[in-house]
Amino acid sequence: MIIGGAEDKLRKRTILKDFVAASGGADARIAVIPTASSLGPEVVEVYDALFRRLGAADVVAVRPESREEAGDPELVARLESATGIFMTGGNQLKLSALVCGTPLADAILDAHERGVVVAGTSAGASIQSSHMVAFGGPGSTPKQRMTQVAAGLGLLDSTVIDQHFDQRNRYGRLLMIVAQSPQLLGIGVDEDTAAIVDHVDDHEILSVVGRGAVTVFDPSRIVTNAYEARRSSALLASGVVLHILPEARAST
Amino acid sequence: MIIGGAEDKLRKRTILKDFVAASGGADARIAVIPTASSLGPEVVEVYDALFRRLGAADVVAVRPESREEAGDPELVARLESATGIFMTGGNQLKLSALVCGTPLADAILDAHERGVVVAGTSAGASIQSSHMVAFGGPGSTPKQRMTQVAAGLGLLDSTVIDQHFDQRNRYGRLLMIVAQSPQLLGIGVDEDTAAIVDHVDDHEILSVVGRGAVTVFDPSRIVTNAYEARRSSALLASGVVLHILPEARAST
Repeated sequence: MIIGGAEDKLRKRTILKDFVAASGGADARIAVIPTASSLGPEVVEVYDALFRRLGAADVVAVRPESREEAGDPELVARLESATGIFMTGGNQLKLSALVCGTPLADAILDAHERGVVVAGTSAGASIQSSHMVAFGGPGSTPKQRMTQVAAGLGLLDSTVIDQHFDQRNRYGRLLMIVAQSPQLLGIGVDEDTAAIVDHVDDHEILSVVGRGAVTVFDPSRIVTNAYEARRSSALLASGVVLHILPEARAST
Repeated sequence: MIIGGAEDKLRKRTILKDFVAASGGADARIAVIPTASSLGPEVVEVYDALFRRLGAADVVAVRPESREEAGDPELVARLESATGIFMTGGNQLKLSALVCGTPLADAILDAHERGVVVAGTSAGASIQSSHMVAFGGPGSTPKQRMTQVAAGLGLLDSTVIDQHFDQRNRYGRLLMIVAQSPQLLGIGVDEDTAAIVDHVDDHEILSVVGRGAVTVFDPSRIVTNAYEARRSSALLASGVVLHILPEARAST
C-alpha cells in the first residue's frame, strides 16, 4: 500500500481505514516504523491513536536509529506477530540507509511474502520500490542530474515510486529516472491517495483509493538521449505511455 | 514559432535571433502585436530595440485595444509589408477577445498563409492554436474543471498550446483538455524555449530551440472518464503517449 503522503487523518480517513481493515480489522496487530521521521515519539503516538481508534487490536513501534539497532533480535521479533506494517514519512534516505540490508529489512520482506500488509506514506512509500528516489528538485520537464536514485526495499520489483506527486510537481524527476532506466515503471502517487498492489498468482494488480491519482510512466518504448545529455540539459523522452489513474468511482 | 515565455532578451537571445533571421534578417520588417500585455508603450519599446539590435530593417506596432480598432483598415494595412509578426505575452483571453474574428485576425492568417513568420511568446504562443487555454491553475494531476478553453487564432489546427510549462507546473491542465478533447494534440512549451512549426508540403514539422523542452501529449488512444467525472475530481487518463522534446544538439 503505497501512500503519497498527507493522507487524511481527521475526516473520512479512507486510506488508513482501508489499511486497518486489510490488516485484519479488530484483529489487526500493527507495527509502526517511524525511522524516516525527524519527529520525536509524537509521530508514533499519532498513528498509535489513529489505528486504535480505527479498531486495531494492537500497535507497536519499531524504531531503529542505527543499522546496529536494525539488527537487534528483540526489535526484529516485534514484526513476527504483526498483521500490518506501516512506515511513516520523513527522509527516505534515512530509512534506506538505516534499514535496507539489515535483519529488520529481511523481516519486512518475509512478512510481505507471507501476506502481511505493508504500507507506507511519503518516504515510507518511496522505500517500497526496488529503485528509490533519494532526493531532487521539482519541475515538470526532466533534466539530467535533477534527482538521485538509491536502492529501496524492493517490495515492488522493477519500479520507482515517487510521492506528493501532483502537489510538489515531481513529473520531471520521475521521468528523468525512467529515461535513464527504461526497465523501470515509474509510479507517482498524489497526496491523500494510495496505490494498492495485490499479488494475485504470478502478477500484481494495482488499484487506487483516495482523493488524487496515481500516475504511471511506461517507458518501455522510449526514445531518449539520457545516455549522452550533458550537465543539466532537458532530456529527450519520446514515446512514454502515460496512465493517470484516479480511484474508480461508480459512474455519475 | 511558439515561445513558452521568458525568452532570453539579454544574453544569447537565440530564439529572438532565430525569429529575426527567419523573418529576413537585414530585410526583416516586423509587426509587434502587444495587445495581450497590460504594460504601456514600454513593451513595444523593448521589442523594437531588440529586433533592431538583432538587425531587423523595420519594426511597427499594431496595438488594437478594442474589436473596432482591430477592424481599422489603417492598422490592418501595417501587416501588408511585414515579413514577421510577433505577439507579446500578457493575457491571451484579451488577445482572443479583441482580435479573433476581426479583419486583423484575417490579416494575420493571410500573412501566415503567404509565408510570413508568425511568432508569439506566452499569451502570444497560446493564441496560435485552434483551441486555447484561457486560464486555470497549476498542478500535475488533471482534474475536472481546472481550466477553461476558448477559441484561438488557429494557425495550428487540432492543437492546444500551453506555455511556461515546466516553470508553472501546467501538466494537469493540458492533460485535462486533451482528455476532454482527444482529437487535439497538447503542446506544452517551457520558458526560453520555442516550438518551430514549418509547413512542408501537406504536413507540419516541429523542431525545438532553447533551454527547455516542448512536451507533446498524444491522446489519440486515451481511455478516460472525462465525460462523467464529477466536480473537481482527478481524471482517468490512461494511454496518453508523451514526447518530451528538447533542442537537438550535436552529441557529446
